[in-house]
Amino acid sequence: MTKWVCFANRIGMTNPILVEVTRGPLVESLHRGAIAISDARGALKLAVGDVESPIFPRSALKPIQAIPLVESGAADRFAVSDAELALACASHSGEPQHTEPVAAWQARIGCGVADLACGPHRPLHEPTATAMILKGERWTALHNNCSGKHTGFMTLARELNAPVAGYREVDHPTQRRVEATLKEMAGLSGEMPWGVDGCTVPNFALPLAALARAMACIADPSGQPPARAQACTRVIAAMTAHPELVGGTGRACTLIMRQAPGIAVKTGAEGVYIAILPALGLGAALKIEDGASRASETVLAALLIALGVVKNEGHAFSLAHAPVLNTRGVPVGERRVPEGLLAY
Amino acid sequence: MTKWVCFANRIGMTNPILVEVTRGPLVESLHRGAIAISDARGALKLAVGDVESPIFPRSALKPIQAIPLVESGAADRFAVSDAELALACASHSGEPQHTEPVAAWQARIGCGVADLACGPHRPLHEPTATAMILKGERWTALHNNCSGKHTGFMTLARELNAPVAGYREVDHPTQRRVEATLKEMAGLSGEMPWGVDGCTVPNFALPLAALARAMACIADPSGQPPARAQACTRVIAAMTAHPELVGGTGRACTLIMRQAPGIAVKTGAEGVYIAILPALGLGAALKIEDGASRASETVLAALLIALGVVKNEGHAFSLAHAPVLNTRGVPVGERRVPEGLLAY
Repeated sequence: MTKWVCFANRIGMTNPILVEVTRGPLVESLHRGAIAISDARGALKLAVGDVESPIFPRSALKPIQAIPLVESGAADRFAVSDAELALACASHSGEPQHTEPVAAWQARIGCGVADLACGPHRPLHEPTATAMILKGERWTALHNNCSGKHTGFMTLARELNAPVAGYREVDHPTQRRVEATLKEMAGLSGEMPWGVDGCTVPNFALPLAALARAMACIADPSGQPPARAQACTRVIAAMTAHPELVGGTGRACTLIMRQAPGIAVKTGAEGVYIAILPALGLGAALKIEDGASRASETVLAALLIALGVVKNEGHAFSLAHAPVLNTRGVPVGERRVPEGLLAY
Repeated sequence: MTKWVCFANRIGMTNPILVEVTRGPLVESLHRGAIAISDARGALKLAVGDVESPIFPRSALKPIQAIPLVESGAADRFAVSDAELALACASHSGEPQHTEPVAAWQARIGCGVADLACGPHRPLHEPTATAMILKGERWTALHNNCSGKHTGFMTLARELNAPVAGYREVDHPTQRRVEATLKEMAGLSGEMPWGVDGCTVPNFALPLAALARAMACIADPSGQPPARAQACTRVIAAMTAHPELVGGTGRACTLIMRQAPGIAVKTGAEGVYIAILPALGLGAALKIEDGASRASETVLAALLIALGVVKNEGHAFSLAHAPVLNTRGVPVGERRVPEGLLAY
């Protein structure tokens, strides 16, 4: 088996500080990481830190995982709507606006919650969780933030005449299709390292630079084969049309996409974020070394502001310069990108 | 105002990797940080990473914050029990076993929940939170994990004939007493940087080496003035006698102290941990650069195992080699200290 060099462990490579968390007069904590911006041909426009060692994109892979669903013809055959496609790209909050359409989509393809390979977890949307507790309801795999993606996999399995059972296995036709698509869009060849994602499906690891390139192919599909180009166009259209389905009430992805129509952003666990920037024809990918999402959100917002694709106001400003609050809600520090790192 | 150099920002200083988080064949995320072990005279037994720049000990300061409560005579005058003293040192989970004795203690000194400067937050113990939701109850400042510490401050204010109101201000006699005690036990002089803690009281920043020394003074109070030595002895006795009050059901502090009777450990927000080791006459302090408690717990457990004060089994083993689980509860990776960092 190939031995992969681990992120930020390469000789001489220390990822730079991307986020400082202050308290009073001091930087209390800090977050290191890496950022890549690429065009669809793999030309790097920005490389900060280690963009060459493989990282797990986690849920930031979802826009790519949704491409075969459209490209294969499954989305057309099963009349998958843009809202459903957005849910396939989502780490949703488990609100009724998410779980109800996912359940309806499953029913249409002859599947149900028992077919989902993902485990149940508490809805990310706390008022939904509280309401369920008060009604004596239990969260199910439908509330798993990945249930839309899984429903997309089951839909693809139907199209490929493959058994729905086992769709989470790395050698199942759905996952093989995802892997091949990712390799092509990322400009990679050969063996890809993979691990099991939180929701039980394979997650393929790749360099940040390659992940940014794959996202650039969605932003600028002009060099893709026609069916894939159409799939890219549908995915970005679905995500930007339904920011509330890609994340949920109050979530960073949703707030950023609402503020910057036309761009798509997607968070991934362990400090990953991607951005798809059609107007620039670019894709961006970033990874916080320690896996903190508070830091990935801050860097994403600061990056989009620096690129001029979102104004330095509203939610983007609040994420890029997030106050640290005490239990009385009083600001006692700040979370920010170090001065000069991303000039804007 | 003095300009302090920030942790891990000193020229040429990069904290080493203390924890690797793996997924499948790769290290997915990593945590850098620093560790100091000192005796009561400030002789460093171990120094890993930046142990010289000031860090905020956050709640790991609580054992020191409790010293003036005993040393001043307040604990005797107001008949503060060992259980109450443990609660003064606690970041408790807001369970009835914590909130009920804190409320009773407050009543005894003529105070109540309205006097608490800390804000309310959801009990850390999720079943307690769920039970409250079902009963339609709201969490109050009593459920704040610091309510015991605050009740200690109010008790000290009574002893000092100072107004209880304003006890959270840095120039209030209670906080001045804490600052002076910390300086002496840490072997520091001059101005101390401070910030506002999550629970609104001042938190004084100091080098990890000095924090470890202060904890060593509790472990080995032989060099302290008699009243302070007695206070140190009572604090360590109270913490080790009541592990369940210092943390709560399932909490790392509680589990570690139950497994290793005689030692006291205390977590602090933003990746801090301290250990008080009476049998060795040593104090330990560690800080994860990025503030992750998952990493501080792992390093603490691995450190105590390496020191031979806890066996490499049970909860300590589970914290030092924590599985990363997917939503079906299947291990897909591991959280661990890099091989060779702490030999054991």
